[in-house]
Amino acid sequence: MVPILECVPNFSVGRDMQVLEAIADHFRGKQGVKLLDYTADADHNRSVITAVGQPEALRDALVSAVGEAVKRIDLNCHTGQHPRIGAADVVPFIPIRGCTMAEADAIARQAAAEIARRYDLPCYLYERSATAAHRKNLADVRKGEFEGLPAKMQDPLWKPDFGPEHPHPTAGATVIGARAPLIAFNVNLNTSDVRIAKAIARRVRHSSGGYRSVKALGVLVEQGEVAQVTMNLTDYTDTAVYRAFEAVKMEAARYGVGVRNSELIGLIPMQAVADCAAYYLQMDSLNVDRILESGLEF
Amino acid sequence: MVPILECVPNFSVGRDMQVLEAIADHFRGKQGVKLLDYTADADHNRSVITAVGQPEALRDALVSAVGEAVKRIDLNCHTGQHPRIGAADVVPFIPIRGCTMAEADAIARQAAAEIARRYDLPCYLYERSATAAHRKNLADVRKGEFEGLPAKMQDPLWKPDFGPEHPHPTAGATVIGARAPLIAFNVNLNTSDVRIAKAIARRVRHSSGGYRSVKALGVLVEQGEVAQVTMNLTDYTDTAVYRAFEAVKMEAARYGVGVRNSELIGLIPMQAVADCAAYYLQMDSLNVDRILESGLEF
Repeated sequence: MVPILECVPNFSVGRDMQVLEAIADHFRGKQGVKLLDYTADADHNRSVITAVGQPEALRDALVSAVGEAVKRIDLNCHTGQHPRIGAADVVPFIPIRGCTMAEADAIARQAAAEIARRYDLPCYLYERSATAAHRKNLADVRKGEFEGLPAKMQDPLWKPDFGPEHPHPTAGATVIGARAPLIAFNVNLNTSDVRIAKAIARRVRHSSGGYRSVKALGVLVEQGEVAQVTMNLTDYTDTAVYRAFEAVKMEAARYGVGVRNSELIGLIPMQAVADCAAYYLQMDSLNVDRILESGLEF
Repeated sequence: MVPILECVPNFSVGRDMQVLEAIADHFRGKQGVKLLDYTADADHNRSVITAVGQPEALRDALVSAVGEAVKRIDLNCHTGQHPRIGAADVVPFIPIRGCTMAEADAIARQAAAEIARRYDLPCYLYERSATAAHRKNLADVRKGEFEGLPAKMQDPLWKPDFGPEHPHPTAGATVIGARAPLIAFNVNLNTSDVRIAKAIARRVRHSSGGYRSVKALGVLVEQGEVAQVTMNLTDYTDTAVYRAFEAVKMEAARYGVGVRNSELIGLIPMQAVADCAAYYLQMDSLNVDRILESGLEF
């Protein structure tokens, strides 16, 4: 079986589609690499690319895509709601099939070393690739953002893992690492009262006492009409999708509010889908070995 | 994308594992063919092989496996609870990926023609390959079983599609055809009263007024301790797994009985699993394009 990695780089461009296309092009038409998805968010002035491929081929595509971002994006003129530290802001590598976390980590380190060497860009390793506990969490690495980098990098605690000990003048720094597959999904409520979504998020997320590996926020979407609990499951083997979903439903019932629907953002591993079906159908014998790839054409 | 067919032949052998192994061997070590599963049932004196592969390679493996069954199985000395018409009793071909029902049908016809020619064995086409409405349903083709074949084959309505107009002396006849993927699953109840399982089966199955493409029976399993509704979903795009499951739950509630668990027999298409997760999570955006093949090794 050919090993498959996923790479989901986030770039600090969300309004200039020409620049995003130029970056995405580096994942196109390459042997062993497949561009699955890319989306731009104008409010956040940020975009997310989803690509999968054979580890070395995907690494090389990513390195050249980062080069494009360094050339085209100037963080000195960048505004947006989303925190960011660099033009190629964060680059996670995720093992998908026939590939261990250690192998994903090795690819992440090779990419970081090459990016630092080729573009004179400082790189930090995070998540499963972090070289110290305080560098594991993306929010901590990114704290102070692009504007705070010159001061932050003077601190020996924040010496980069690769590259110069000062920010790139226009592209800042890049955060790279291996991590478990993350599932992003939103639960929309039958209410426009965002306070309810916020209260539910507080009870479900790990940081305020909820389920492990769950991040959650309450926000208002669809022109202020729908309160939403927006979640990241950073490890679905800790907390399954159905458990997070049912926890939101249970907390919402406390306000007499129901679930309108839920949405998946990006991709989801087959095992996570099977776990949900197995739970609701009480079907212990359902596992991925019993699932036939689909795409039936009648 | 390489086209993939599934073949799930049923052989009239369930007690002699040496014979079953010899038959299964024909699906082993062949380019473009993968033996996924095989199980023998002693009560039914019957076994089911599940293999997938490239259409022509799978067809050729099946033809040689049927030859093995013709050589090794004598229906004149065969007893068992399950109705059967031949040594290689029924051979469905199911399109799995990159392959239409018409292509599966063509492969089924080629296999039937070659089996008839090579082993002098009469073959009937059924399901989507049937050449007349009265031959579509397996139960109708098999009615009268091996013992009734000499008389049945005198009727012009039951002239075989390929091969001689009389049964093979030891191997009877074989029923071959293309069909949609079938999902076999059982729902075990929190009761040992089989009358309840039978009553539920009657209300759920299509033949007595229930959901379309659902076959169901009430039986007693686990040494008479558990009443079970055993189901075949012959087209999950008509009736999804979750709908059949919830229908059983709903009818069981009428007797104050709950669901103990459910079991999957054989394989299930990924789309059918995604349909269940999408229903329970109210997640319209979940579709197979968003699902990453798994097999993560951490």
